[in-house]
Amino acid sequence: MNDVIILGAGPAGMTAAIYCARKQLNVKVLTTDVGGQTLWSGGIENYLGFDYIKGSDLVDKFEKHLKNFKVDMVYKTAATIVDSRDGWAVEDGDGHKHQAHTIIIATGKSPRQLGVSGEDKFRGRGVTYCATCDAPLFAGSDVAVVGGGNSGVEAALQLADIAAKVYLIESDPELTADEVLEDKVYDHKNVEVLTGTTVTGIDGDILLESLDINADGRPRRLAVTGVFVEIGLTPNSAIVKGLVKLNETGEIVVDRSGRTSRPGIFAAGDVTDEPAKQIIIAAGDGARAALTAYDYLLYLV
Amino acid sequence: MNDVIILGAGPAGMTAAIYCARKQLNVKVLTTDVGGQTLWSGGIENYLGFDYIKGSDLVDKFEKHLKNFKVDMVYKTAATIVDSRDGWAVEDGDGHKHQAHTIIIATGKSPRQLGVSGEDKFRGRGVTYCATCDAPLFAGSDVAVVGGGNSGVEAALQLADIAAKVYLIESDPELTADEVLEDKVYDHKNVEVLTGTTVTGIDGDILLESLDINADGRPRRLAVTGVFVEIGLTPNSAIVKGLVKLNETGEIVVDRSGRTSRPGIFAAGDVTDEPAKQIIIAAGDGARAALTAYDYLLYLV
Repeated sequence: MNDVIILGAGPAGMTAAIYCARKQLNVKVLTTDVGGQTLWSGGIENYLGFDYIKGSDLVDKFEKHLKNFKVDMVYKTAATIVDSRDGWAVEDGDGHKHQAHTIIIATGKSPRQLGVSGEDKFRGRGVTYCATCDAPLFAGSDVAVVGGGNSGVEAALQLADIAAKVYLIESDPELTADEVLEDKVYDHKNVEVLTGTTVTGIDGDILLESLDINADGRPRRLAVTGVFVEIGLTPNSAIVKGLVKLNETGEIVVDRSGRTSRPGIFAAGDVTDEPAKQIIIAAGDGARAALTAYDYLLYLV
Repeated sequence: MNDVIILGAGPAGMTAAIYCARKQLNVKVLTTDVGGQTLWSGGIENYLGFDYIKGSDLVDKFEKHLKNFKVDMVYKTAATIVDSRDGWAVEDGDGHKHQAHTIIIATGKSPRQLGVSGEDKFRGRGVTYCATCDAPLFAGSDVAVVGGGNSGVEAALQLADIAAKVYLIESDPELTADEVLEDKVYDHKNVEVLTGTTVTGIDGDILLESLDINADGRPRRLAVTGVFVEIGLTPNSAIVKGLVKLNETGEIVVDRSGRTSRPGIFAAGDVTDEPAKQIIIAAGDGARAALTAYDYLLYLV
């Protein structure tokens, strides 16, 4: 029986784990990765203490820090959470049960998917959700970016300097990014902006070869080897659906101390309804959720 | 006219400044020091990203980070805040006025004072409020620690290895620290624990020479050259008293986004009613208050 099981090991989950360990709680972390969205960040210049650091380098520092503490890391998906005697049982993807008095959900957000044919098949073989991570792989290629908001336009700008040709696709009649970014993207001769355009399918053989679109009612096939999906993020809260209160976008509703609607279940980081999604805020909230869980345990055991 | 004036430059104020500057707000920081309470911390091992770092070294990193941004630093006390056209006017200790649309209070906490004669006169000449900073100055000396809670007992333990003799003074009939700490302090032969004892005065010539106490009704004079005051912290909220809502301990009441009871005035860090006083939490809350102030300005200007 653990005192705490933490789901996720992004900035919120890692800070929560450190704070729990320092309180000498018996803590287990279930996660499929270490670093969360920070891993995908190119350069970070707003995490206090580091002038400028690559996301993956910051995650290395976080992970090295975490390794100083007694934390049981289990690299598995958490599949379900059920009520159990004195707490909760988390079943992982392999059917193993992990018991704890309290749970801290720090599962973050994941990129929203297009939901078109071929998307699953060509994931990692041309379809990607992280321009910062994968843009360098497409040097000299023709690629498409789907999503005309800030992250899509930023991805297109980044790719414009690397790829041969960039299609920027937005379903709305206009781009929805900050004007300064839009101005920049229109300055690039190798970027073709296609607004009022939806994606209908992704095709290829072993690797991705083409993207099917519908541009103002006319179907068209773009010959590309990379498709960068940049249409937003969705909270990884499925595991607590029905168990704790979620808001209309699926984020976990928490109070300012990280309590969910269910006693004994806490949450921190981007999976919560905290509007500001920032590394330093997620880390602070992870610490806070851990201290709140600690207080809860004082009265429980 | 500034967009934002930030009062204080601890972790909350510095993070708020970085976030404001990155939003291209015109930001001024009024502060008497850089680092706040972090400066006094011996070793820090729970700020995510740094395994173990001295407080003053962490502050150096914070300050170096802050210097990358366009922030107007004014090293003065803020004396008063008054309503002004389109915002607020902060008068500094020299009578100069600084105008801004919004204010972020990040003034932290200060050590509580004894309030006895001689305390002011011998501050920095024997009276200190930071064992971590000043203990090494008293090697081989006889010293007193006032305060029998965790911070006082920790100070006594630290001094026991450095000083010749340590008096540990507590007004309650018993020490009020964690048992494990109390056990340790009683193990040290050079620590004399004086409970039920109050401090009545501090005396000396140019430097501190003695501490007057009242031990169970009997006055006594201790020959010491150092007095470490460890009787808690008090929020630096005097400047907003009557302007925003404070709780019963004088902390600024904020909502989870850093709003005070007064539109346009925000707060973050240890001066607020956030119960967990931690560097990483203050930094996260500083970022949050800055983003909330930014949103407020969007609708104002």
